[in-house]
Amino acid sequence: MLVKLPNNETKEILTLWMEGSDVKMINQKLLPYQFEIYTAKTYQDTAKAIKNMTVRGAGAIGVAGAYGIAQACLTAPKKDINSFLKHVKKAEKTLKNTRPTAVNLFHDIDRVLAKLNISLPPEKNEKIMIEEAKKIAEESIISGKKIGENGESLIKNGAKIMTHCNAGALAFVDWGSALAPIRLAHRNKKSIIVYVNETRPRSQGAKLTSWELLQEDIPHIIIPDTAAGYYISQKEIDLIIVGADRIAANGDTANKIGTYTLAILAKENNIPFYVAAPLSTFDLKTTNGKAIPIEQRSETEITHIWGLLEKNKKIEKIRITPKNSPAKNPAFDITPAKYITTFITEKTLINPPFEKTIKETLKN
Amino acid sequence: MLVKLPNNETKEILTLWMEGSDVKMINQKLLPYQFEIYTAKTYQDTAKAIKNMTVRGAGAIGVAGAYGIAQACLTAPKKDINSFLKHVKKAEKTLKNTRPTAVNLFHDIDRVLAKLNISLPPEKNEKIMIEEAKKIAEESIISGKKIGENGESLIKNGAKIMTHCNAGALAFVDWGSALAPIRLAHRNKKSIIVYVNETRPRSQGAKLTSWELLQEDIPHIIIPDTAAGYYISQKEIDLIIVGADRIAANGDTANKIGTYTLAILAKENNIPFYVAAPLSTFDLKTTNGKAIPIEQRSETEITHIWGLLEKNKKIEKIRITPKNSPAKNPAFDITPAKYITTFITEKTLINPPFEKTIKETLKN
Repeated sequence: MLVKLPNNETKEILTLWMEGSDVKMINQKLLPYQFEIYTAKTYQDTAKAIKNMTVRGAGAIGVAGAYGIAQACLTAPKKDINSFLKHVKKAEKTLKNTRPTAVNLFHDIDRVLAKLNISLPPEKNEKIMIEEAKKIAEESIISGKKIGENGESLIKNGAKIMTHCNAGALAFVDWGSALAPIRLAHRNKKSIIVYVNETRPRSQGAKLTSWELLQEDIPHIIIPDTAAGYYISQKEIDLIIVGADRIAANGDTANKIGTYTLAILAKENNIPFYVAAPLSTFDLKTTNGKAIPIEQRSETEITHIWGLLEKNKKIEKIRITPKNSPAKNPAFDITPAKYITTFITEKTLINPPFEKTIKETLKN
Repeated sequence: MLVKLPNNETKEILTLWMEGSDVKMINQKLLPYQFEIYTAKTYQDTAKAIKNMTVRGAGAIGVAGAYGIAQACLTAPKKDINSFLKHVKKAEKTLKNTRPTAVNLFHDIDRVLAKLNISLPPEKNEKIMIEEAKKIAEESIISGKKIGENGESLIKNGAKIMTHCNAGALAFVDWGSALAPIRLAHRNKKSIIVYVNETRPRSQGAKLTSWELLQEDIPHIIIPDTAAGYYISQKEIDLIIVGADRIAANGDTANKIGTYTLAILAKENNIPFYVAAPLSTFDLKTTNGKAIPIEQRSETEITHIWGLLEKNKKIEKIRITPKNSPAKNPAFDITPAKYITTFITEKTLINPPFEKTIKETLKN
């Protein structure tokens, strides 16, 4: 993605990449106030960065997981394949134990592990597995671009588009899912405006999506989540595009909390509701949405908010609730397939009946 | 309402009252961190308190407006009725120019002004008009209690209730509208739990409703607005009760931004959606929702959040968006009457067809 650096230079930067044994990533906890690259020196650092959301978004988490396994290969003992395997398996457990909902994390880690061949020496495995991790990252970039190309056709000149959370380049390695068609429509000189839902509790819309759109001067307006229904009912919105954390075989979609509500609003107001996601987000082993576990995150994300105290330019946490009130914080919700108009993937647009078309798309 | 004071004493306190020429009110800008009474010494102070939301909520704003006129009567020149009238009319303009959506403000101010009789001397008018303002406040208390009694029957033992914003005692003089039936159900020993939507941007749910519920130990859980759909779709919610800022003749209801979305979610998931409001909220001159002006508030409420910086115990404002991103902040939305199950008023429960029943209820 393009990033405007403090010196006014514009530079192409990936969300995360591997450099020697380091995994480097844009520190998303500091956005939109500070642009900084965080360096994870070990797989444990990488796991921590996934857990505390220095890196977040289904696609980026998956690649971070794959890179984490690559880091584990580098530090694994090489005297025999069993010690190597033991070390890598320990890393697998640590890395998988960070965020429970995103299927990409498990998928990408498993894909690197599938290259493990116990009849080959550790050094050989190390080389093959690191290559595979890097290949996953490259494929993520290509699939993002193709999602952009396939989805761009759904955006007419003059379109007012609503999006939720951050399904942008920051959620992948580059391009993004929901933001890829938007980015491309803008680059193709279509006049568009993006309504960015704040996306409480972590405000990824207000903090990250707006930041990404600003980098390429894509017109946008931040609104509170409570105002989404108002703008949709006023016919101010032509279409909604969101990303996905996991899509079941029948099309039921887990995505950031609040997505389900937008789908209901779209249906009630007869506007299309698009889900943009790479094919790796589809999980045929998950029959339907009921089988997707919903991560419950800390109460603190509800009772407190992080932001920039402008007078001292420090990122501070303030309390916005009374001390003794409990809070609940489900990170995702499930949007039943019947509310989804079309899935935008790197391969094709997938239309209903999803029970049939998803299977077909994934098999061919 | 009951308030737990810092010394652990529990005391009955009104949201606002008149004491001599002062209007005293709970400073809602400091809640839930500090409990403090603000004193408005002049009608200008009262107008400012309405505008900056030291006092907020349709009912409380109306009473504050009426008290403001009473204050203007006290300071008006008494040498002749014309000078008196001129002063009071100036106060009317200032007080009405604070918040555009709440009909109670106009209604209550007009009710005091209707007592003005130019054939009587200023001193006599002053006395009558102050009495009328105090009568409005007393009636607000009584109507809140009756809304509680009429609505309580809709709450079964074990009910899980969702509410939005603050339609509690803090939004009136006492009792509240949406919270009155909840308060009474709890006092009647029904086991209930209240899901409190945060209600961005000003977080009146997270800050005020939770605070009110804590004072009487009513079990509750604060959730982000984005999670309302999740809990409703999980069948975790039995009913939704909200307040109203203005109700049109056909039942279309203006209320805090986000209300429309909850009504759509209730309909899609087949749970009742109740609107609790005193009859003064109904405005027969407004044919339908399209005629209700929607207040657009400052961008700052979206780009920044106020809260307690716990390390220095100060209320601070932090930025949560990038500096150059625009934001929009509509304060209310319109819920079409067709999504509303029942209106809970101090007189009766009003059921469809609202075009007919609202008129009947208001006429009798």
